[in-house]
Amino acid sequence: MPENGDITFHTRKWVRPEDLNANGTLFGGSLLRWIDEEAAIYAIVQLGNGRAVTKYMSEINFVSSAQQGDLIEMGLTATHFGRTSLTMRAEVRNMFTRRSILTIDKLVFVNLGEDGQPAPHGYTEITYERDRVPRQHLEG
Amino acid sequence: MPENGDITFHTRKWVRPEDLNANGTLFGGSLLRWIDEEAAIYAIVQLGNGRAVTKYMSEINFVSSAQQGDLIEMGLTATHFGRTSLTMRAEVRNMFTRRSILTIDKLVFVNLGEDGQPAPHGYTEITYERDRVPRQHLEG
Amino acid sequence: MPENGDITFHTRKWVRPEDLNANGTLFGGSLLRWIDEEAAIYAIVQLGNGRAVTKYMSEINFVSSAQQGDLIEMGLTATHFGRTSLTMRAEVRNMFTRRSILTIDKLVFVNLGEDGQPAPHGYTEITYERDRVPRQHLEG
Amino acid sequence: MPENGDITFHTRKWVRPEDLNANGTLFGGSLLRWIDEEAAIYAIVQLGNGRAVTKYMSEINFVSSAQQGDLIEMGLTATHFGRTSLTMRAEVRNMFTRRSILTIDKLVFVNLGEDGQPAPHGYTEITYERDRVPRQHLEG
Amino acid sequence: MPENGDITFHTRKWVRPEDLNANGTLFGGSLLRWIDEEAAIYAIVQLGNGRAVTKYMSEINFVSSAQQGDLIEMGLTATHFGRTSLTMRAEVRNMFTRRSILTIDKLVFVNLGEDGQPAPHGYTEITYERDRVPRQHLEG
Amino acid sequence: MPENGDITFHTRKWVRPEDLNANGTLFGGSLLRWIDEEAAIYAIVQLGNGRAVTKYMSEINFVSSAQQGDLIEMGLTATHFGRTSLTMRAEVRNMFTRRSILTIDKLVFVNLGEDGQPAPHGYTEITYERDRVPRQHLEG
Repeated sequence: MPENGDITFHTRKWVRPEDLNANGTLFGGSLLRWIDEEAAIYAIVQLGNGRAVTKYMSEINFVSSAQQGDLIEMGLTATHFGRTSLTMRAEVRNMFTRRSILTIDKLVFVNLGEDGQPAPHGYTEITYERDRVPRQHLEG
Repeated sequence: MPENGDITFHTRKWVRPEDLNANGTLFGGSLLRWIDEEAAIYAIVQLGNGRAVTKYMSEINFVSSAQQGDLIEMGLTATHFGRTSLTMRAEVRNMFTRRSILTIDKLVFVNLGEDGQPAPHGYTEITYERDRVPRQHLEG
Repeated sequence: MPENGDITFHTRKWVRPEDLNANGTLFGGSLLRWIDEEAAIYAIVQLGNGRAVTKYMSEINFVSSAQQGDLIEMGLTATHFGRTSLTMRAEVRNMFTRRSILTIDKLVFVNLGEDGQPAPHGYTEITYERDRVPRQHLEG
Repeated sequence: MPENGDITFHTRKWVRPEDLNANGTLFGGSLLRWIDEEAAIYAIVQLGNGRAVTKYMSEINFVSSAQQGDLIEMGLTATHFGRTSLTMRAEVRNMFTRRSILTIDKLVFVNLGEDGQPAPHGYTEITYERDRVPRQHLEG
Repeated sequence: MPENGDITFHTRKWVRPEDLNANGTLFGGSLLRWIDEEAAIYAIVQLGNGRAVTKYMSEINFVSSAQQGDLIEMGLTATHFGRTSLTMRAEVRNMFTRRSILTIDKLVFVNLGEDGQPAPHGYTEITYERDRVPRQHLEG
Repeated sequence: MPENGDITFHTRKWVRPEDLNANGTLFGGSLLRWIDEEAAIYAIVQLGNGRAVTKYMSEINFVSSAQQGDLIEMGLTATHFGRTSLTMRAEVRNMFTRRSILTIDKLVFVNLGEDGQPAPHGYTEITYERDRVPRQHLEG
């Protein structure tokens, strides 16, 4: 299912007036909020744990902007499984022109145990199967 | 790329406190807001026109609810291309349990011309190629 | 107090930039969010129970749209009391032109007990008296 | 239609998690936002002009608070028509207990002309007829 | 550190489309929401207690408005320490022109104990030292 | 006025339920949204131009998290004036414990001309005087 190298694009956004800055282009803060939520979702699926938190982002290049009415898509792929962490690569692009809007090479989430401390997650490769159901969902 | 019959699931949401109703479960209004945005995006891609508007939704069954921390995914597929309209089927489900949250059998968007009136769109089948770029994006 | 047949219009909204879609007209998702909240409030008052949840909506016709600056009002009326459910009819209209924006013939909420399961509510007709105070408010 | 003296209660809100402050009670800022929108709507209806702006609020007593799950209703009544202004009285109360949450004795809106300056509105009494349609709605 | 008489301006806002009313100027409700949050923060710092709640606001003059793109700053200063209360003066102004947008002479917060009732706070003067750490932060 | 090395902390936030992720701690996306707005404000003041846009962020370390009820403050300082750009250092910290929440060493904004292209800004050092009023404010 991967496209564009290793990245699969899932979540999409339609740029509406509430997402604009005072110059009438896409507000950078909205963009960062969207990519952080998408990364959290990707990490939870890969680690099978809802207690995964953002730990680190490498440098972010805002390559191009977006306008009201543009369709945006966000893509992530796991690039490294540490003992308690997951490293991902992220890209946001314009759905029509496929032009990149921003890229983040390393986005690290940490797997937390019930005590809120980093805990081993036991995984070493990407799943597309969604078979890593967080424990609370099996018991709930 | 279709899965689960004809539906492809794209946009995902992580249910956070701001999405809850006063009972602490997913607020129905948030859910409807998300699916309407996703349908608009799907319609714009299929019709190659940003001026597509919601015209009709068939009955909606709220099959199950969702809790804080759940991951939700929204899926759509085109089921009929009218002369000026596009009919889609929508499903929202829990990403882990794959349990359905709601389904909408017919979700109709209408293609508008520059005068804001319904206009023929000229398409009869689903594209996965994203080659239907709205004119304003080519010229912009 | 009923007007327009049986429907009483209560909650009103002023369409602001944050409520618009990328075409500059009222975003359908905002509209659905507003009507779902208003229906929840109506159901809670009629059932005297804050644990009422959206179960079903019949088809929705988006008759006309709205613009920035328009005043919108939302009206509901109970049309049927089931053993554990309440069926309502909903209409959203422009306050000035009284032109209908959308109608929903059947909007069903279910009364839940403390165990989260459907529970009999014991009512068979509409109240305007607001004498159905949820238990937690009497004890609180 | 007036109740509780002269005030008619229209817009209602269901207190959800997004409306709470960090102590878990209704955030005062949300409450002020709601009453300001409701006052703007009331003023626009009475003055038949969408260009009415908040000019003055007299002192505000936060008589009691509200909790998640409470239903709130907002009421306004015109108390004085100046040459270019409208003075209203506002009350927010709990729908179930009818206990007052806040009151504002004088809430003044000013009628603006197309040049953004105060302009005479020509009215001297309350309408319930909604016959004061802003000009842009008649022409639109 | 005080400037402009006794008031120190801290929190700043950039007026974006989501903050506008339907006339395209700053929505009064957004403004009131911002100043209430800033006052809560100031009161929590001065009282060393996160359980401080808005009790009273004296009259509010909306001296001038603001436009999309304007930078706004909010300033507060303590004017009186009661036994269980704190009285503040608030001003919101345009950062560039320094023109006042609104002023509130008396904004009273009450210090609550663990039982939710007014409790003595023991302070009589302004601190700039931030040495009044709420107990839960020391124990947390 | 600088404190903590060169950084001056201005904007403050009170962490409320709407700012939390599904684990009940501060949502990273909210944090990034706040710091991007604060950086835009700082850049607009330093460059005297409302058309300044986010171009680059160096790596971000999420050193610690925050809880509901915490007070957060955001600080920035200019570290380099390029011909068309401004580089800033940013820190977000807990107001009470002064513990760092995140730091960004390089946050670059670019000054845009009326044609939307990078334009020289003509400045080489930090101002505290606020004398760099954007042209539209002088003419407005």
